[in-house]
Amino acid sequence: LLIVGERLNTSRKRIRRAVAERDEAFVRKEASKQAAAGATHIDVNAGTSVQEEADDLKWLVETVQSEVDLPLCIDTASGAALKGAIALTQKTPLVNSITGEVERKAEILPIVVEAGADVVALTMDDSGLPEDIDGRLKAARELLKELTDLGVQESKVHFDPLIRPISTNPEQAMLAIETVRQLRAEFPEAGSICGLSNVSFGLPKRHLLNRTYLAMMVAAGLRGVIMDPTEPAMMSTLLAAKALAGEDQYSMEYITAERDGRLQA
Amino acid sequence: LLIVGERLNTSRKRIRRAVAERDEAFVRKEASKQAAAGATHIDVNAGTSVQEEADDLKWLVETVQSEVDLPLCIDTASGAALKGAIALTQKTPLVNSITGEVERKAEILPIVVEAGADVVALTMDDSGLPEDIDGRLKAARELLKELTDLGVQESKVHFDPLIRPISTNPEQAMLAIETVRQLRAEFPEAGSICGLSNVSFGLPKRHLLNRTYLAMMVAAGLRGVIMDPTEPAMMSTLLAAKALAGEDQYSMEYITAERDGRLQA
Repeated sequence: LLIVGERLNTSRKRIRRAVAERDEAFVRKEASKQAAAGATHIDVNAGTSVQEEADDLKWLVETVQSEVDLPLCIDTASGAALKGAIALTQKTPLVNSITGEVERKAEILPIVVEAGADVVALTMDDSGLPEDIDGRLKAARELLKELTDLGVQESKVHFDPLIRPISTNPEQAMLAIETVRQLRAEFPEAGSICGLSNVSFGLPKRHLLNRTYLAMMVAAGLRGVIMDPTEPAMMSTLLAAKALAGEDQYSMEYITAERDGRLQA
Repeated sequence: LLIVGERLNTSRKRIRRAVAERDEAFVRKEASKQAAAGATHIDVNAGTSVQEEADDLKWLVETVQSEVDLPLCIDTASGAALKGAIALTQKTPLVNSITGEVERKAEILPIVVEAGADVVALTMDDSGLPEDIDGRLKAARELLKELTDLGVQESKVHFDPLIRPISTNPEQAMLAIETVRQLRAEFPEAGSICGLSNVSFGLPKRHLLNRTYLAMMVAAGLRGVIMDPTEPAMMSTLLAAKALAGEDQYSMEYITAERDGRLQA
């Protein structure tokens, strides 16, 4: 199960300031905190300032790599920023994200292929995010075919079903779960990954909804999650879910976390 | 979603004493606490003393009914005890449980049919609990057929996949989830119900595993749970899971629970 640590995102005010001030110590600490908490990838996102994004992202990549030995998740909608950042990565990066949208594909796809990167593939195309499962599966199939035709291995593609708030779309939470389940059945080699916190937008006790949804998603076969690994409730649920899903042999990871005082009921 | 409050079970020392002493006030309070916490059924189990079971169960039924207006879950392996208790019930009871085992069936089945009761059907037969999904589905199918042949409506049958500890059977947790999912697809009218706490036997932070498993089960289509509704972590997860599964319109139940201070992240 991939755990992409999402904290280094300039949409967080404190991170924006650290990036603007080139505060290496702060960014390094954010990276190492997430690695210590169990992240398998560190996400870097400098998308809040279009002008500075390319430079900021390069600086983030170099700063994080100077501290931790994990692969990065390069999180950008800009081909130019992606190109500069990906050239600096030391381990095979995960690119977040590509979609079936023609323009975005034209810009991102060649960079992903050339770098041999893993890629997050959103199950949407130029007509937007399909409302039903069949539409999402169709978008996923087409995008996967295009990627594999270009030589990308199926195992390097990670579908993101895109999570919407239940406050506005009550049926979408189960629909995304079913999408993950069916994609896993149809493409057992491909991964799946998503952020979960959108699901609880507009509702109270968001951590409760997010961790409950995480458990549901893991049972449906989700292969990766974009989250804050330093959040104890979410990580506790993730460890419990792995043990229940048979992905933690003899529950050793779970038991070790308990011994270290990291589990929160 | 059925919530069967499991506290009134003489395997709990405090309950055993209350039953032995015919402590009406205590038993009434246990019943009303569970009703207030959201139970839809109150389980009564006096199975610890074979000699006294029939009398104890009758007393429990009458005492609980004198306090709360909910249907009961009559939880016994004894046909004689069931017969006496079921005759006293004021609302359609849920009988826990019947299996495909020939002797048990011969004893329990006629009582269930005559009373027009709902029934928990364990997915096992005389060869025990099948190790694989197909064996469980087969046991479920056969038992359901026998019940419907006797005139029991499919909607009155609640399959229990039987939960085993992951500490000894790591793959069984997911197998039970898959059993629930497939039974729901094959028999959409039938219910499903189970206790969850077995899953965490022998491991630390059992509530964390139990609530995580509950979320997974609800996503797979579980229609009922036998639990302690006064346990805040479990009930919080249940309310979050219902909201996510689209079974709590506009998340009103969830939001109300938060207003009442009943949600625990």
